[in-house]
Amino acid sequence: MNSISIVQLLSNAPIGENVCVKGWVRHFRGNRFIALSDGSTIKTLQIVLDFENMEEDILKQITTGACLSVEGELIASQGKGQALELNCTKLEVLGTCDAESYPLQPKKHSLEFLREKAHLRPRTNTFGAVLRVRHTLSFAVHQYFNTKGFFNLHTPIITGSDAEGAGEMFGVSTLNKKDIPLTENGEIDYSQDFFEKETNLTVSGQLEAELGAMGLGKVYTFGPTFRAENSNTARHLAEFWMIEPEVAFADLDDNMDLAEDFMQNVIGYTLKACKDDLEFLQNRLTDEEKSKPQNERSDMPLLEKLEFVTSNNFKRLSYTEAFDVLRNSKPNKKKKFQYPITEWGMDLQSEHEKHLVKHFGCPVILYDYPASIKAFYMRLNADGKTVRAMDILFPGIGEIVGGSQREERHDVLLQKMKDLNIDPEELWWYLETRKYGTCVHSGFGLGFERLVLFVTGMQNIRDVIPFPRTPGNADF
Amino acid sequence: MNSISIVQLLSNAPIGENVCVKGWVRHFRGNRFIALSDGSTIKTLQIVLDFENMEEDILKQITTGACLSVEGELIASQGKGQALELNCTKLEVLGTCDAESYPLQPKKHSLEFLREKAHLRPRTNTFGAVLRVRHTLSFAVHQYFNTKGFFNLHTPIITGSDAEGAGEMFGVSTLNKKDIPLTENGEIDYSQDFFEKETNLTVSGQLEAELGAMGLGKVYTFGPTFRAENSNTARHLAEFWMIEPEVAFADLDDNMDLAEDFMQNVIGYTLKACKDDLEFLQNRLTDEEKSKPQNERSDMPLLEKLEFVTSNNFKRLSYTEAFDVLRNSKPNKKKKFQYPITEWGMDLQSEHEKHLVKHFGCPVILYDYPASIKAFYMRLNADGKTVRAMDILFPGIGEIVGGSQREERHDVLLQKMKDLNIDPEELWWYLETRKYGTCVHSGFGLGFERLVLFVTGMQNIRDVIPFPRTPGNADF
Repeated sequence: MNSISIVQLLSNAPIGENVCVKGWVRHFRGNRFIALSDGSTIKTLQIVLDFENMEEDILKQITTGACLSVEGELIASQGKGQALELNCTKLEVLGTCDAESYPLQPKKHSLEFLREKAHLRPRTNTFGAVLRVRHTLSFAVHQYFNTKGFFNLHTPIITGSDAEGAGEMFGVSTLNKKDIPLTENGEIDYSQDFFEKETNLTVSGQLEAELGAMGLGKVYTFGPTFRAENSNTARHLAEFWMIEPEVAFADLDDNMDLAEDFMQNVIGYTLKACKDDLEFLQNRLTDEEKSKPQNERSDMPLLEKLEFVTSNNFKRLSYTEAFDVLRNSKPNKKKKFQYPITEWGMDLQSEHEKHLVKHFGCPVILYDYPASIKAFYMRLNADGKTVRAMDILFPGIGEIVGGSQREERHDVLLQKMKDLNIDPEELWWYLETRKYGTCVHSGFGLGFERLVLFVTGMQNIRDVIPFPRTPGNADF
Repeated sequence: MNSISIVQLLSNAPIGENVCVKGWVRHFRGNRFIALSDGSTIKTLQIVLDFENMEEDILKQITTGACLSVEGELIASQGKGQALELNCTKLEVLGTCDAESYPLQPKKHSLEFLREKAHLRPRTNTFGAVLRVRHTLSFAVHQYFNTKGFFNLHTPIITGSDAEGAGEMFGVSTLNKKDIPLTENGEIDYSQDFFEKETNLTVSGQLEAELGAMGLGKVYTFGPTFRAENSNTARHLAEFWMIEPEVAFADLDDNMDLAEDFMQNVIGYTLKACKDDLEFLQNRLTDEEKSKPQNERSDMPLLEKLEFVTSNNFKRLSYTEAFDVLRNSKPNKKKKFQYPITEWGMDLQSEHEKHLVKHFGCPVILYDYPASIKAFYMRLNADGKTVRAMDILFPGIGEIVGGSQREERHDVLLQKMKDLNIDPEELWWYLETRKYGTCVHSGFGLGFERLVLFVTGMQNIRDVIPFPRTPGNADF
């Protein structure tokens, strides 16, 4: 008999029919009730055994983690907690699971412990839910852009240019580290390396995405990016996925409109598609926060927070306006900020971003930042001191999106690069787009794991990617 | 006035309305007719100028590659070749383009030349079409798996295990190459590297995908993979994108069913969604093949070939059956094969794969390969000498999909690893999935660029990825 997934069973509910289900045992109690999971949904299917007529040997093999094939009649459940159950008529143990040594015992494990067992954690409720939500967000991203006429552009992972300056990079090489070839001048002889020059893992696909937008109009990237920074925080990964749309003929206002619509759409789609998983994650978060002092708990339950973000406009204000709000804020006057708000032009810290979000009670878009704290490719405003940059700040997360209108004027861009000691020769191809049919264009970057953190309510970025890469950790 | 994309204009055709269009000049003839492209479609919009009432200075700036904003009334076209044209009432040159130095002249450029100009080639008809088709195939992949209940799993790019043995790997490191730290024994001291061990770029996400399938049931990866092989061929890239579904409870027959349905579905979706682009690419291919001898040309025009693949069952036969077909074939008997078919167990070459596809006149699935020529994780058949592997062979491409049922038996897998000198300690996490609730499962891998090659009819894999990485080439 062909098997059917539990999510299909629960949605079709063919009561009275004989079906076959395959999955893993979550619990087995009273020698009678098995909670079976197949990963298709957070819900388990209750299997009811006629244990008095079953072999003792088989019953003994039904332990947490064992893999089963079960046939039987689907009936309306007598018990509470589920609508359906399967009256087992045939049971086969596909794979046993030693109850003593199996790391996932039928109890709550710490997230830290489960990180060490990343090969097994997709079998838990929490990680099953996180990974299904992650998938749904990923699909929503592709669907949104496809519907809006964007083309997915696969920008390179290995890059020969290190001009973007977004952070420390990982070197990529086939040179024998025990015998690095040197030139006559004692420099590394990269002509003998695979690409015949120094190469690194990309920190961003933006510059290449701009090349795509200058021909295709609207493009987006969705791929892995890398930072070799020794940051052991709950917000940083050495390898993470980034989404970077880039749009020809779009100015900063268009860019903010796109980013807001995109975030609301993607989160809204996931809210609908992952209701069961998000309810589970909401309860998980509420439980976890019970041990925290009141002022460290979330302002709203998870689902309410997501609804709120999808149905309220984001507050837009300039860096200068935000600077004034922060300077006049209570925490600043009472010297509660670790970094006091002093001079216009200073970079805003996480504590400031969080204050702004709390102050306005909604996601905030800041724009027109001081040029000195932003990247070389952002368009200079007429005031000569601010650039057309924008950051979106989310409750509990802080900065989640960073974008800008790009400097489309060849002379201004070239001067900026020279001022910042960026070699124009390195980026000849980038400069040429400003020489040949240049136009106003804009884009933004969204760290995908930050979005997954926000939507799942998880607290550590290592828990929203299947196999996290951090300093000292490249297991699995 | 807000601008509208050309693809929207052509599909809505709001004749009589005033619209604004922004794009790049492809041609300008007779001081009167501009062919404008915005990348949203292969089609250009004809702009008709009232040149007698325009400033000479502006007219001079309308050159190939220049970026324009044009307003005017949309009218039914008088000329042939298009249904609509725009009667220009207002024109602004957003970005000029020096006609002398612009690399993309209004003539046919060789694909080799355009590879050197990869930053500009999305602006050409051929690469615009290829990149739109590539996007559509990519979206079709996500849509197919999402609809079928698969979860997209982002498997790691940087990996600490090199046990899969799929090919040469790129090293990833933050060690200073000029001063590599050594241990007391003279070995490289990886404890000082970022991940505190030797790491490489992944060659496949399969092993990690299996971990996901053992919890979530059905997963797929779609990400970049890497081979540091010095292959300068039209079929190899150092960096390419791979799709790898993995399904719990699926045997090899299920796997072949999935792969066939998947390929037909994805190609079928793209056929419908990219008709204009594929017609252009079909004509391009036909033109290109005119200079080739008859026997080197395609058997069918591009669209007919794609229709054929989506509407005919793939021929399935075992390696042993294929071996007999090949041994008794004309080219073998006439010693036309470079590698004669001699002994059962030999690996099949590209020439053999091509012969089989021609012989059966359709895509072919070969299965049950000799164990000695396949990877360690493939399930051993009862005969003890073949494994449950399958390859799909496509016309003109050869192998496009490779997959297998995985060895789910702990003892058999462990023995196989020992026989092949694969350290079980290295893959402890992989082995544990066979220890705790193991089950039959299968999956396959599809090199995404091979699929794009097949669907676009392009001949060189460097021309179906935006910025190709090959030996000595990591530009842009």
